[in-house]
Amino acid sequence: MSQFGPDYVRAIAPYQAGKPIAEVAREFGLDEANIVKLASNENPFGIPESSKQAMAQAAAELGRYPDANGFELKAALSKRYDVPADWITLGNGSNDILEIAAHAFVQKGESVVFSQYSFAVYALATQGVGGRAIVVPAAEYGHDLDAMADAIEADTRLVYIANPNNPTGTFIPAARIEAFLARVPANVIVVLDEAYNEYLAPENQFESSQWVRKFPNLIVSRTFSKAYGLAGLRVGFAIAQPAVTDLMNRIRQPFNVNSLAQAAAVAALNDKEFLAKGAQNNAEGYKQLTAAFDELGLEYVPSYGNFVLVKVGNDDGAGARVNLVLLKQGVIVRPVGNYGLPQWLRISIGLPDENATFIAALKRALG
Amino acid sequence: MSQFGPDYVRAIAPYQAGKPIAEVAREFGLDEANIVKLASNENPFGIPESSKQAMAQAAAELGRYPDANGFELKAALSKRYDVPADWITLGNGSNDILEIAAHAFVQKGESVVFSQYSFAVYALATQGVGGRAIVVPAAEYGHDLDAMADAIEADTRLVYIANPNNPTGTFIPAARIEAFLARVPANVIVVLDEAYNEYLAPENQFESSQWVRKFPNLIVSRTFSKAYGLAGLRVGFAIAQPAVTDLMNRIRQPFNVNSLAQAAAVAALNDKEFLAKGAQNNAEGYKQLTAAFDELGLEYVPSYGNFVLVKVGNDDGAGARVNLVLLKQGVIVRPVGNYGLPQWLRISIGLPDENATFIAALKRALG
Repeated sequence: MSQFGPDYVRAIAPYQAGKPIAEVAREFGLDEANIVKLASNENPFGIPESSKQAMAQAAAELGRYPDANGFELKAALSKRYDVPADWITLGNGSNDILEIAAHAFVQKGESVVFSQYSFAVYALATQGVGGRAIVVPAAEYGHDLDAMADAIEADTRLVYIANPNNPTGTFIPAARIEAFLARVPANVIVVLDEAYNEYLAPENQFESSQWVRKFPNLIVSRTFSKAYGLAGLRVGFAIAQPAVTDLMNRIRQPFNVNSLAQAAAVAALNDKEFLAKGAQNNAEGYKQLTAAFDELGLEYVPSYGNFVLVKVGNDDGAGARVNLVLLKQGVIVRPVGNYGLPQWLRISIGLPDENATFIAALKRALG
Repeated sequence: MSQFGPDYVRAIAPYQAGKPIAEVAREFGLDEANIVKLASNENPFGIPESSKQAMAQAAAELGRYPDANGFELKAALSKRYDVPADWITLGNGSNDILEIAAHAFVQKGESVVFSQYSFAVYALATQGVGGRAIVVPAAEYGHDLDAMADAIEADTRLVYIANPNNPTGTFIPAARIEAFLARVPANVIVVLDEAYNEYLAPENQFESSQWVRKFPNLIVSRTFSKAYGLAGLRVGFAIAQPAVTDLMNRIRQPFNVNSLAQAAAVAALNDKEFLAKGAQNNAEGYKQLTAAFDELGLEYVPSYGNFVLVKVGNDDGAGARVNLVLLKQGVIVRPVGNYGLPQWLRISIGLPDENATFIAALKRALG
């Protein structure tokens, strides 16, 4: 192929992003205004008004570099999560946090443990540093934590856990995660990826940020791209003890989080109304989608996130086939064949009318 | 220190960013409105109006992920630089391009060649992948290209060249770069970092983007953070042949460039008036600053960028000492002791009154 670069870089299969609305419009000759996108687990309410106002104030200074230390945002996160500011690493989305962790803690040839059917970036970040992926078979589409603990080898440096998991939506109760953390050797970093944490019902919520006090090898990763509605701005963060945070900040690009994202995130963090509205819409949309799946006799994985994984056929062409018919109707969802789930589609929960448009299109697709 | 991470990560000394205005205000008890920042080679005109308008249109969709393929921006760059869109890699600032190149082409233990007194990120990116830095002594504060070609070893995978160079402002004429490229082995990647290209006088401009047709191992790196005034938004790009571009895109984070940055960059790219206004201000400000240095009998390096490196004393404490006195007067410039230039300061060229405020403060500082 190429004479440049290490073998492990040449072997990377790049991340497959959800198709943007403009691209589907171009490809299928559709009007952008008629397209429904339920493909990328985005917030159907978009960005909060509070964030827009904060951005307008920050916009005057965009000729300046962002604050490399993220003073205001770290201060707000520190207060919200009750950890010192120097326990926080800012990321260009939590994707950046996941990659920084691989770069900071894994060398070529060392191993990384994660679950089958977990977020695609774990494999990409591992391969990007020439790491060896130990992929542990899933249990009922979720993490098998006992098997994951057993899978840790002498050269394992990092474990990724997603809770809730994307793309399957499965959830691990707090007690099981805590028991897992107690089993992991002290020299192995655990990244607990909680991108969908804010969608959990109150009875499932737990202050994972406080676990980092107990476990010096734990990194809790969060994002503003989902419940906070800032996917287009790129901001995520990690909470970990100072020794680990210090190493992540050596790998972090100094201006990785842009000025508007920092300002918007401070505002969004305190916008409880926006979060509440989103949570309510999500709970109702989940009922709307799953009622339709029940009616159609489609299997789905009970989800704790803002999306549902649904099985649209029994043959390995089903996901791609139904996806294409949906696309032609202007409905963008996510095929997950690249996750080894070719019979399934992942549907992000949208506004009630978006969900209804999808359901109608799905019924036509299934004929 | 820590039980986590490779030795080479633990040895990284993080990038020292210019002090943000708010931080200096907090530290020295000053009013932000009275502070002049000439520390980070930012554009004194800030972000162009054309970019603000483009951002306002894009703001409605910030709940969506950015276009991972950067369709509109790549199309605009493709037209502007007369290269196919698949020769372009987008970066979260050109800092991201510099780091992607290290990750894509250098493994632990392999070597990277760059010049003494060149941009700090070359050393950081090299160390971040466990690479071995071959630092070639500068000639009159600039690149010694013959010595750099001679310094390439069998395990060298990457060479960084800055033109104009930061923090010294030196410039290499086109013919010398072309002769250097012809000498570099075909399996060694050359990153030609042209962050300050747009400040060059017309007689020094050359279409480096066209060199990539001739040299399959060349990556031209550019930024929107300087002449285009978008430092706070984070957008840069690389031009290289498809084989090299393809590898960089395997390492690139899919959503590395945020939506507003993409929209703002498309607008700025075509805003010739803004570029012309900035170039004129820069030329005049350069005369204003260097006339003052001449009057004060201070040595400076003739600069082709939007900044000037000036020697403020003959002892190794001079830079830090004068910098502190400037800070107390509310003037932020950049000490460059971390570049091995402890007797010097780097001054970004600002608006005429900002330059005047700095000159007055410098005269007081020098007593």
